[in-house]
Amino acid sequence: MTNFAYRLLGGDGKARLGLLETAHGAVHTPAFMPVGTAGTVKAMMPESVSATGAEIVLGNTYHLMLRPGAERVHRHGGLHRFMNWPGPILTDSGGFQVMSLAKLRKLTEQGVTFQSHLDGSTHLLTPERSMEIQRMLDADVTMAFDECTPFPATEAEAAASMHLSMRWARRSREAFVDRQGYGLFGIVQGSVYPELRAESAAALLDVGFDGYAVGGLAVGEGQEEMFRILDVTVPHLPVERPRYLMGVGKPADIVGAVIRGVDMFDCVMPTRSGRTGQAFTRRGTVNIRNARHQDDPRPLDEACSCPACRNYSRAYLHHLAKAEEVLGLMLLTWHNLHYYQDLMRELRAAIGEGRVTHYAAEFAALQALGDIEPL
Amino acid sequence: MTNFAYRLLGGDGKARLGLLETAHGAVHTPAFMPVGTAGTVKAMMPESVSATGAEIVLGNTYHLMLRPGAERVHRHGGLHRFMNWPGPILTDSGGFQVMSLAKLRKLTEQGVTFQSHLDGSTHLLTPERSMEIQRMLDADVTMAFDECTPFPATEAEAAASMHLSMRWARRSREAFVDRQGYGLFGIVQGSVYPELRAESAAALLDVGFDGYAVGGLAVGEGQEEMFRILDVTVPHLPVERPRYLMGVGKPADIVGAVIRGVDMFDCVMPTRSGRTGQAFTRRGTVNIRNARHQDDPRPLDEACSCPACRNYSRAYLHHLAKAEEVLGLMLLTWHNLHYYQDLMRELRAAIGEGRVTHYAAEFAALQALGDIEPL
Repeated sequence: MTNFAYRLLGGDGKARLGLLETAHGAVHTPAFMPVGTAGTVKAMMPESVSATGAEIVLGNTYHLMLRPGAERVHRHGGLHRFMNWPGPILTDSGGFQVMSLAKLRKLTEQGVTFQSHLDGSTHLLTPERSMEIQRMLDADVTMAFDECTPFPATEAEAAASMHLSMRWARRSREAFVDRQGYGLFGIVQGSVYPELRAESAAALLDVGFDGYAVGGLAVGEGQEEMFRILDVTVPHLPVERPRYLMGVGKPADIVGAVIRGVDMFDCVMPTRSGRTGQAFTRRGTVNIRNARHQDDPRPLDEACSCPACRNYSRAYLHHLAKAEEVLGLMLLTWHNLHYYQDLMRELRAAIGEGRVTHYAAEFAALQALGDIEPL
Repeated sequence: MTNFAYRLLGGDGKARLGLLETAHGAVHTPAFMPVGTAGTVKAMMPESVSATGAEIVLGNTYHLMLRPGAERVHRHGGLHRFMNWPGPILTDSGGFQVMSLAKLRKLTEQGVTFQSHLDGSTHLLTPERSMEIQRMLDADVTMAFDECTPFPATEAEAAASMHLSMRWARRSREAFVDRQGYGLFGIVQGSVYPELRAESAAALLDVGFDGYAVGGLAVGEGQEEMFRILDVTVPHLPVERPRYLMGVGKPADIVGAVIRGVDMFDCVMPTRSGRTGQAFTRRGTVNIRNARHQDDPRPLDEACSCPACRNYSRAYLHHLAKAEEVLGLMLLTWHNLHYYQDLMRELRAAIGEGRVTHYAAEFAALQALGDIEPL
């Protein structure tokens, strides 16, 4: 099954350069997908998201099914039109959020019954319903419905959870309606157990998906363990299909995963941090609320060309954060998303030029320096 | 004294068309000035404020002196550079906010001693200090320091307050440093008493200012009373200088004041309402949080070309408001400011074409229709 094309354009070691061609446009990989939980990348105009270089955004099935409702989004022409994002959209399956946000969950073979965290109303999410919702949202990339295995889990618990997810993956595939330019990704589970990861990957390959995600990571296992799991999981994934590491992560996580052969990422970190005054820069994270910035005329990141860095001083951004002005979170979110896209651009360039290992070392050295000295 | 030019370009009845030429650019009047209290027009990028057609913004001396501090803004090159607004800026004198926001105020002939509402620190605001602060902020238009007479006030109270403001106006003029392109406006007080308004205007003219504001209105007296006071005050102001009605107002207030000869306005209404889900349209106000909009595919205002109306449905804006998404207040603020600037553009065009009375009648008829019927 190949509902959309994925062209491998180059590689450097295990790192890959690719182009995913969806119904709403192409995505250069490695790609970072900003999270647009409730039909908006928080505090950003969609034109601004696009201006950072993002080519695809993520929507959350759980949030959207509860508010404004998938049927409503469908009546309004799908999520692209509703939220004014004409480019590709990936939606998650709701499996993760239903376990982390909903109340009174009951998990059975059929699916998950839960109460909305918004109004207490009861809902049932199954592989079939998740596929239906994601189709109504008009997602270019649909994710199979799975259970995100809790962490930590014993091997027996992880196996039982993974086996359920694999049965749900098959039901997701059967319920998914093939359309040109729209794809379905399976999700490898198996917690921290290499044999389970291999078994999960084989089960998904047996079904056949348009892409393969690695789930159940970035849940508290730490970067070293995450890289170890990637090292034993990625080799089981087909070369010719895109690979997506879900919910990851910090810039250093992304760099490490790219050199391990991962193509796609999403994370709330740049947007969420932007709303709490934390900025990502080439020299690590900066808390703009810190008094050391209150008279600093320099930009957040000299090497950044985003509006926050081009037009404003740290002193001004500090002032906005202290005064809790909306513009402060707008500018920091913009900067963080721009920085993440710069990182992906630089990674793609480095892969194309066969110097990604060198780039990763330079990246780490610069991050380790820490923020510029106060004036 | 003429620190900046004000060219009268035309008129229609009492309504006037003019051009104010400041150190940071020209302002077409009648003009509406968005309020940028703490060095930002809330929830707007300055480029977006400019895109609505605004040519001048207002900054608040009281807020800026407390945070980030006038000296700090001065060190960072003045307010234009600090907030990335290269166009003209008018700052108020702090007189109004110190009475409405500060704690433990003590008013003497010298000025007002008060405690900051932010941290309880003690400050003294005098005509001389207000001029100094506004100069450090680099305001193109500086406002004389005055006492905003409480409403209601007896004639004796209003007279005493106005006389104090007139003594402070003279001290403001003496402390103001003349610079080409920078002007100082005096403020007419006198509450609802025509004789006091006339006396106040005469006192200001005796000193001589670059422009004349009408203060102490929009404080609870009602539109009819406000228009009555304008009718008896504006004739006392010199034809060749700009006239500014402070803190006004609703669209209908502005239309009524323009046809009474007022040139400049400011109000928090479009920005503040935008943050609470209230939109101003050609057919009156719309509360986007109301359930009637939840499935409405139409724009807020069919005749509006702002991004909120061009690219989004009422259903989407309703969703954003219910979900308390930052983009919701960004879009509604943008729309409201755009609507206000459309109103000023239309008023200027109507004055230029000698049909402002007709325009005012059409405006009122459309507003009276109320919002479009639900689908």
